[in-house]
Amino acid sequence: MANKIRVTVWNEFVHEREDAGVAKIYPKGIHEAIADFLARDPAYSPRTATLDQVDHGLPPTVLSDTDVLLWWGHMAHDRVSDEIAAAVQRRVLEGMGFIALHSAHFCKPFMRLMGTNCSLAWREADERERLWVVERGHPIAAGLGPYFELPREETYGERFDVPQPDSTVFISWFEGGNVFRSGCAWERGAGRVFYFRPGHETYPTFHDPNVQRVISNAVAWAAPRVMIPGAHECLHEIVPLERI
Amino acid sequence: MANKIRVTVWNEFVHEREDAGVAKIYPKGIHEAIADFLARDPAYSPRTATLDQVDHGLPPTVLSDTDVLLWWGHMAHDRVSDEIAAAVQRRVLEGMGFIALHSAHFCKPFMRLMGTNCSLAWREADERERLWVVERGHPIAAGLGPYFELPREETYGERFDVPQPDSTVFISWFEGGNVFRSGCAWERGAGRVFYFRPGHETYPTFHDPNVQRVISNAVAWAAPRVMIPGAHECLHEIVPLERI
Amino acid sequence: MANKIRVTVWNEFVHEREDAGVAKIYPKGIHEAIADFLARDPAYSPRTATLDQVDHGLPPTVLSDTDVLLWWGHMAHDRVSDEIAAAVQRRVLEGMGFIALHSAHFCKPFMRLMGTNCSLAWREADERERLWVVERGHPIAAGLGPYFELPREETYGERFDVPQPDSTVFISWFEGGNVFRSGCAWERGAGRVFYFRPGHETYPTFHDPNVQRVISNAVAWAAPRVMIPGAHECLHEIVPLERI
Amino acid sequence: MANKIRVTVWNEFVHEREDAGVAKIYPKGIHEAIADFLARDPAYSPRTATLDQVDHGLPPTVLSDTDVLLWWGHMAHDRVSDEIAAAVQRRVLEGMGFIALHSAHFCKPFMRLMGTNCSLAWREADERERLWVVERGHPIAAGLGPYFELPREETYGERFDVPQPDSTVFISWFEGGNVFRSGCAWERGAGRVFYFRPGHETYPTFHDPNVQRVISNAVAWAAPRVMIPGAHECLHEIVPLERI
Repeated sequence: MANKIRVTVWNEFVHEREDAGVAKIYPKGIHEAIADFLARDPAYSPRTATLDQVDHGLPPTVLSDTDVLLWWGHMAHDRVSDEIAAAVQRRVLEGMGFIALHSAHFCKPFMRLMGTNCSLAWREADERERLWVVERGHPIAAGLGPYFELPREETYGERFDVPQPDSTVFISWFEGGNVFRSGCAWERGAGRVFYFRPGHETYPTFHDPNVQRVISNAVAWAAPRVMIPGAHECLHEIVPLERI
Repeated sequence: MANKIRVTVWNEFVHEREDAGVAKIYPKGIHEAIADFLARDPAYSPRTATLDQVDHGLPPTVLSDTDVLLWWGHMAHDRVSDEIAAAVQRRVLEGMGFIALHSAHFCKPFMRLMGTNCSLAWREADERERLWVVERGHPIAAGLGPYFELPREETYGERFDVPQPDSTVFISWFEGGNVFRSGCAWERGAGRVFYFRPGHETYPTFHDPNVQRVISNAVAWAAPRVMIPGAHECLHEIVPLERI
Repeated sequence: MANKIRVTVWNEFVHEREDAGVAKIYPKGIHEAIADFLARDPAYSPRTATLDQVDHGLPPTVLSDTDVLLWWGHMAHDRVSDEIAAAVQRRVLEGMGFIALHSAHFCKPFMRLMGTNCSLAWREADERERLWVVERGHPIAAGLGPYFELPREETYGERFDVPQPDSTVFISWFEGGNVFRSGCAWERGAGRVFYFRPGHETYPTFHDPNVQRVISNAVAWAAPRVMIPGAHECLHEIVPLERI
Repeated sequence: MANKIRVTVWNEFVHEREDAGVAKIYPKGIHEAIADFLARDPAYSPRTATLDQVDHGLPPTVLSDTDVLLWWGHMAHDRVSDEIAAAVQRRVLEGMGFIALHSAHFCKPFMRLMGTNCSLAWREADERERLWVVERGHPIAAGLGPYFELPREETYGERFDVPQPDSTVFISWFEGGNVFRSGCAWERGAGRVFYFRPGHETYPTFHDPNVQRVISNAVAWAAPRVMIPGAHECLHEIVPLERI
């Protein structure tokens, strides 16, 4: 099974233990819900990691054994150590895929990779969200129709303060009057980064078949094409090139 | 006045002469309505041109005297000659600005410059359109708030089949469930191209102060930074470079 | 074998029949040389087509049976019919891959897809070319080192007048003082376009292992992710969207 | 003079005080050499700041009074405090221009804005550098020919590990066999960032007329179009949008 894509699903795992409503939707936590549907694909070998574990569950041995890292966080972004955030960033630049889910737009690794405020507008109003597929040929949109809907979600709105995506795969429409670039893909270093908007903890969004399909597609897309382990060391040790 | 930006507003000018409702909104035609509000800016020297004129009003003497060309067309795209369309494309690649308005997404010069189908989805349903400013720092958005609205417009929807814009300045929300990249900017050759979505002939859109502000901003943005008259001749006469 | 990638290698096939030196390097023509090395990969099913065949060897039955089209042309660009060029462009926008080789920067299908002059500077001076891999994670660079060299090639130089590539995979250095974006990738419609600079007819470039690797990688990258056969018809038949 | 562009030229100012050869080229320091030629343009109001000043010469009162910040640093990147680096980043995202010169590719503010390793290959070999203008219509290239040369400079080579630039204005050729994207422009938040490669401390590069022209052009380009002072606070205070 050496060729399986090694996926680590990270979750701060706080809401599910503090809020009965959230726990009802995700009894084992959002991370386990995601790992469960990914595990149905024989190409994927998922595991999980959470904030309260040693090194947030992301010691070097785990990061170096991870092809694609998914991240869900919301109320505890500040409790993630700068060291782990820097290690995740470095690993992405070496080639690891990174998928930021919903409120992870403010997580430390994503903000470090973007370099921008990553701010956005939002409200909780139980609105219908319709996600339009803008790039129909993009692998992350494989198997989808022209759009798909979520009956109720938290609303996010532009201006989403990120660098212009290399590909804007989805744009969301919300019944309350907002639009949002909901599926954004970037190349960073040797790695790939995808931001996917849906996934508020109070809705069963990660049980939705289309959402599962997008996340599964994104894992395949973000899997390393090449790993360049020395990339982060170049910061201190730059090799002179030969003279012709 | 040699430093004024020389603007030519082109209009197929058919609807206004065939449809009393349209004529009531734009008695002198859409082109004159646009030229009128541009003329209020002392930096601009606007003129107009229409389909039924000789060379569609765009002979070489006019094109070579134009810094920015605006284009409105809808039902008569096929009546524009390939020669004039090619001449417009060539002039844009030399440095002239080109602004395609509303249904001009299907006009020949724009399609030649994009290289894609330029297709989109649409319906006429008198829907409210809200245009969100995605790039607040972009000159075309200068003076606007986070969004502006048009009470009724034709609906356009994604997938808008164009090359990914260099800047996506606006994204529209429509009450009927669609989103659209409403303000798209591209660099092509030495010239600049802007597509602006609103402007269906049955609505007073070009009388709207925000729409006028966007178009006026776009003219300033699209004005030539440099003109490279020889660029089109390179097709047949490529200059070898000197050996060091 | 239904899953093989169906490759059509198109060549104007003029130099090889008019110039003994070229014929010596490519006795069966550049197209056959390319098809030969592609055929060594069991994932590919290559065929060839040339200018002098009926419909230049690209009737609808061939285009609809092609996943990736490679194009080599130089002195006979004008002899390609506008109809065939338009058909190729349309098929690319539907999802077919298109790879323009060397002087095909001026071929009609590529120019239609780019919308720009596609001009560049050049000289024939038997210079060494070093191609630097700028995007090491890009699939087209798979298996390459930091750079590779061709001992003698025609020199191309910037300004290469194309829309900014979605990915600039290679940048070439020439000993005479020029640089050139030698590997440029674009998304257009549902299809992918790659331009690869090397391949002048007087050099054995297509026998070079690194060049063969790049072209083979590019075929895999450009293979359709999705085909949208109706895309070109949208020009005349736009479907209104449902009201929510 | 309220309309002048307020420029702050920052320099770590270490080489010039430790190395007699560098001091001979830049007796008052690189920062003063740059401020001097910028001061010749009546549109600019330049001042300088250095590492050894309080807050590195960049307290909030200076940053809030700066439209464009230029940065030269090399051996003392680590001595810049994280707080100042974060304040610079925040100000750029609000709208301030930032121009990183030469070895400032590794300075903290630039690395924070890019999110990548910003690594590159290099050697000191007194090589000739030829900078090709790739985007002739870009304001930063105004007044330049197709290329300009520096007789001797430090060599930089790809892979330059930055996010794909929004515009690649220059690509350098070095006689020793390297290429480098020497003029790279990005939009970040409401601000603009430009990286310009030349400027090694042992060469009189900042006395070169073309280099001065590029830097002067870049200041004009990077000047704020809009300032959005609240942008960094959005991290903690996101305003819900009104319901329609």
